[in-house]
Amino acid sequence: MVIVMKTTAKREDMDNIERLLERLDLGAHISEGSERTIIGVIGDKRLLDGVPLELMAGVDKIVHIVEPYKLASRAFDPNPSTIKIGDETIGADKLTLIAGPCAVEDRDQILEVAEYLKNCGVGFIRGGAYKPRTSPYSFQGLEEEGFKLLAEARERTGLLVVSEVISTEFLDEAARYVDIIQIGARNMQNFQLLREVGRVKKPVILKRGLSSTVEEWLNAAEYIINEGNYDVILCERGIRTFETYTRNTLDLSAVPLVKEISHLPIIVDPSHGTGKANLVTSMSRAAIAAGADGLMVEVHPNPKAALSDGPQSLDFPKFSSLLDEVKKIAKVLDRSI
Amino acid sequence: MVIVMKTTAKREDMDNIERLLERLDLGAHISEGSERTIIGVIGDKRLLDGVPLELMAGVDKIVHIVEPYKLASRAFDPNPSTIKIGDETIGADKLTLIAGPCAVEDRDQILEVAEYLKNCGVGFIRGGAYKPRTSPYSFQGLEEEGFKLLAEARERTGLLVVSEVISTEFLDEAARYVDIIQIGARNMQNFQLLREVGRVKKPVILKRGLSSTVEEWLNAAEYIINEGNYDVILCERGIRTFETYTRNTLDLSAVPLVKEISHLPIIVDPSHGTGKANLVTSMSRAAIAAGADGLMVEVHPNPKAALSDGPQSLDFPKFSSLLDEVKKIAKVLDRSI
Amino acid sequence: MVIVMKTTAKREDMDNIERLLERLDLGAHISEGSERTIIGVIGDKRLLDGVPLELMAGVDKIVHIVEPYKLASRAFDPNPSTIKIGDETIGADKLTLIAGPCAVEDRDQILEVAEYLKNCGVGFIRGGAYKPRTSPYSFQGLEEEGFKLLAEARERTGLLVVSEVISTEFLDEAARYVDIIQIGARNMQNFQLLREVGRVKKPVILKRGLSSTVEEWLNAAEYIINEGNYDVILCERGIRTFETYTRNTLDLSAVPLVKEISHLPIIVDPSHGTGKANLVTSMSRAAIAAGADGLMVEVHPNPKAALSDGPQSLDFPKFSSLLDEVKKIAKVLDRSI
Amino acid sequence: MVIVMKTTAKREDMDNIERLLERLDLGAHISEGSERTIIGVIGDKRLLDGVPLELMAGVDKIVHIVEPYKLASRAFDPNPSTIKIGDETIGADKLTLIAGPCAVEDRDQILEVAEYLKNCGVGFIRGGAYKPRTSPYSFQGLEEEGFKLLAEARERTGLLVVSEVISTEFLDEAARYVDIIQIGARNMQNFQLLREVGRVKKPVILKRGLSSTVEEWLNAAEYIINEGNYDVILCERGIRTFETYTRNTLDLSAVPLVKEISHLPIIVDPSHGTGKANLVTSMSRAAIAAGADGLMVEVHPNPKAALSDGPQSLDFPKFSSLLDEVKKIAKVLDRSI
Repeated sequence: MVIVMKTTAKREDMDNIERLLERLDLGAHISEGSERTIIGVIGDKRLLDGVPLELMAGVDKIVHIVEPYKLASRAFDPNPSTIKIGDETIGADKLTLIAGPCAVEDRDQILEVAEYLKNCGVGFIRGGAYKPRTSPYSFQGLEEEGFKLLAEARERTGLLVVSEVISTEFLDEAARYVDIIQIGARNMQNFQLLREVGRVKKPVILKRGLSSTVEEWLNAAEYIINEGNYDVILCERGIRTFETYTRNTLDLSAVPLVKEISHLPIIVDPSHGTGKANLVTSMSRAAIAAGADGLMVEVHPNPKAALSDGPQSLDFPKFSSLLDEVKKIAKVLDRSI
Repeated sequence: MVIVMKTTAKREDMDNIERLLERLDLGAHISEGSERTIIGVIGDKRLLDGVPLELMAGVDKIVHIVEPYKLASRAFDPNPSTIKIGDETIGADKLTLIAGPCAVEDRDQILEVAEYLKNCGVGFIRGGAYKPRTSPYSFQGLEEEGFKLLAEARERTGLLVVSEVISTEFLDEAARYVDIIQIGARNMQNFQLLREVGRVKKPVILKRGLSSTVEEWLNAAEYIINEGNYDVILCERGIRTFETYTRNTLDLSAVPLVKEISHLPIIVDPSHGTGKANLVTSMSRAAIAAGADGLMVEVHPNPKAALSDGPQSLDFPKFSSLLDEVKKIAKVLDRSI
Repeated sequence: MVIVMKTTAKREDMDNIERLLERLDLGAHISEGSERTIIGVIGDKRLLDGVPLELMAGVDKIVHIVEPYKLASRAFDPNPSTIKIGDETIGADKLTLIAGPCAVEDRDQILEVAEYLKNCGVGFIRGGAYKPRTSPYSFQGLEEEGFKLLAEARERTGLLVVSEVISTEFLDEAARYVDIIQIGARNMQNFQLLREVGRVKKPVILKRGLSSTVEEWLNAAEYIINEGNYDVILCERGIRTFETYTRNTLDLSAVPLVKEISHLPIIVDPSHGTGKANLVTSMSRAAIAAGADGLMVEVHPNPKAALSDGPQSLDFPKFSSLLDEVKKIAKVLDRSI
Repeated sequence: MVIVMKTTAKREDMDNIERLLERLDLGAHISEGSERTIIGVIGDKRLLDGVPLELMAGVDKIVHIVEPYKLASRAFDPNPSTIKIGDETIGADKLTLIAGPCAVEDRDQILEVAEYLKNCGVGFIRGGAYKPRTSPYSFQGLEEEGFKLLAEARERTGLLVVSEVISTEFLDEAARYVDIIQIGARNMQNFQLLREVGRVKKPVILKRGLSSTVEEWLNAAEYIINEGNYDVILCERGIRTFETYTRNTLDLSAVPLVKEISHLPIIVDPSHGTGKANLVTSMSRAAIAAGADGLMVEVHPNPKAALSDGPQSLDFPKFSSLLDEVKKIAKVLDRSI
């Protein structure tokens, strides 16, 4: 942390800050520039948490040098993490494919999708039991019944199950039925939910918030890891920008960026990321080419009849074709599916 | 709702849509333009919820004509709502002032602020008991003890208490201690929390999400009202943009806009909206001039020692001066404090 | 400027940087923290322009401490600038009102507006002769004829004339007819135009770019001042965000912020800032309350017949009422119109 | 175009609009819904340009159905355009590679890069002669001398030359020396420059503006095509968002989107798009996988000594490795380099 002094700062202002830092067992390194004096703070910056240095006389601004997250950083673990669930591994050379409908709608639908995905060689099925919807008048999900149908699909096919938890009160229920708990974009900064999912012994997919910086996203992962759950998978799903032709702007540069500053695996959701079925295959290819560890794609036996997110869901033939294209890209990058 | 057909759409595509609408008891009004054919849908659009018309052959896009929220709209109630709590009224000619520290830190702090605000003629004290913090290593609040100290402050001064609830499990607890429940920006689309706060018999301050459009904000209010709680107060607190000199971009045009399309009262939080104490007074004046029904301002007896948000908190002399300036503006707009 | 080293940086990396800085006659102040070493650079940072320190071995990132603009900064001139044109003063206690149609359409229109504004006590008339339009199929302005009509309006009424220049080739022409040259939002980073307008002896209104930070805006002003023209007036006109109910998001916090970090006067354009006539009066009040030095408002004798920007233009009765309201706010802030 | 009436609109309001449309030789198709009446406008909408229908009594809003651009749309030309320059073809199965330094710095630098690129099999060299720089104190380019050096590089190597024109006064000069004229992001809405470049007989690379929607970008292309120059190549180079870890957010979904709605070729600039050399290779792979027709990449013999954009430039070994990776992706997509 660097404290930048105003051009009008006085000797005693520097002295006051030095004394304050000393009292907190922190060192001060004063550097007088041609225009400004800056003070480097030496020691554990957490001792300064909640100390509004900005308000001390003579201080212009505080510049943070070191990222606030620790456990999620590459410095903490220089090797990429891998996560093992049953026979599946997430991270490393493996590409993880997660597919399924936006919402679990009924038994026939979810079993039909599961059989299809099994035959495709996909390892994970996704489906929403509790749906966060912008309008209270939209379909809100089958709730616990949805989890049960997903568990039945697993029994029949061996596919592992991914489903979202939208509130702490449904966490125990979810932990009984699903293999990976998903935290949705709108809950990325629901810190209470992050803390509690950190105490559960299940891997977590943490979607990026609509307006979250990569730093805030890694801070959210830090909440989960800090409670003891290291099995966090990041999922880029588009951010909010001024562009309106797409539902969100899929930020694929977050993929190589996260790989550089964090050891966590990162997958991409091109369905929410674009909101348009006809862009999903192109962006799936691009995500894998950018270095993503996997994809989460919305697939529906009959998108025209889907109760939610139909316009961004692929039908079976389109998903099969997506798989073919993604495999070609994966091959030249030496990644297996 | 208007269905816009592709230039390549065929007669039978139009016929298929017409038949689908008929089956759903909806009318279709076909209008052939020089470049495109459009189909106006007549009837209750909720019957189409989850029907992905975008996927039908020949359809280019769907254009929504009517806002998705009903109960929060001005059409539902053409008169501005007022909310009564004890002797205080929110809305109409009255300006509501809510002030206090970001976080309740200890008994002395909160009682000192309460006494001061009482003497200023402010009606509401705010203070966080549960703090949503970006980093898990920051101060997280006193939790229930914080609510108790706020309640004690009310007993001593008669001030009404505003405090945030960050998760459904703390809602009962909050309802016992506070007079207005605040839903924070990061929880604006925590739909489970919205539903449950809609069942509580306490007024709710609903902060705008960092990246929420005004339409999504009113949809969030709709979730609360739809459960039976009509006492919703909107609070503009800045949105996320590319500008970095301020913490957020305070969107004051949302104030007259909301007044036009909704009957709900709207207040402004210039402390979070700017993140800088020295901008708070100017933006408080501007908020009132824009037509806001009140302000929520962070005040701390000693911002330099604040455990959170010190840089955006006002000390007592600065808040007193803010009050003087705001009163002058209020007077010429015929609003009383 | 502070150079932040990687955790893996070696002694020789620091030595290399020190040697490079020495060669450039710059000092290095090395400060070893608990996690990172940082190097403060001492001396004129312009010597480092174009030296990509980020690429040197061991360097993590470069943090800029001092703003890149000098002549536009408050440090350069601690007193707010005022600009004199004829009998008018811009800045200080005076509020500047600039009004008129988006585009000069014909002689009758512009003379009618000028007479009306004269009677209102407004000092400046605006009107576009060259119009930057998103689509090539929209009305593009009367060009030089527009400037001439504005000059005729000045002769008849004594109003001073403000008009936009969209390209360097029209600058001489504009300088012959107008009193203040306007640089539009889309040209805020047309650096060639900025340089050339810096050589003209006329005050310049510099509108903020749609996606420009305040720092980039002051850098653009710096281009003009650096050529010798100190008479720059900043104009906040809304930035681009994800919100779609308004045309832009008017960033009023830029007003007190600019007043703090720059000596230049700043006015507000609530017409483009909101894009909706019915929000203009509220936001005009708010702009003045925030501390703006003036307003630029679109007024048209018959907005329904306007060739451009009709939806955000006020008719005469609405503008007269705006003036009344703004005067009330101005009075309590001790500013005269 | 659809006119949406207010719930309070009266019969006579509809009649007035119908009469106005009739006078303009446009048809009106009135459709009474359960909540609102809408009026479909039939005929050439350009007749309505500048008619602010929003202001007519009873009108709530105007919804545009058809895109404002024509010549740039896929409807105008259902086949993807290809552009021929010398022996090179841009578009179709060919991937176009454009590489070179941000700025032409001196003869040795540009000739060294040209020889290197020639040996790599790259067809186009880029280099800035006139540099648009945020600060007036940064290196502004060699100006005409830069164009001459690029032309010399072409003579020696046969590479075709791409360089930016920042103002209309340099257009003739540029046309003498370069093969493709580049319009930079900051000039994407410099409409005068667009019009004039539309009259030049050289292909144009049109970079997307920092805060431009895809619709505005295609409108900018329309300005050029409308003057007779059909050889427009779009270049996605990142948009401005709230994320600060990258310089811009590269919007790769614009690639398949543009391919769907326009016939123009589209290339990607991952150097400006990310601002970080270590993200460029990943994002180049991703761009090609998304379907881009080519890449524009910053390459410098010694990025550490570059006068501008060093941090995002690749040195020769890194660029050679990028080429290898891109070729592998191109191969599986059946595209040749």
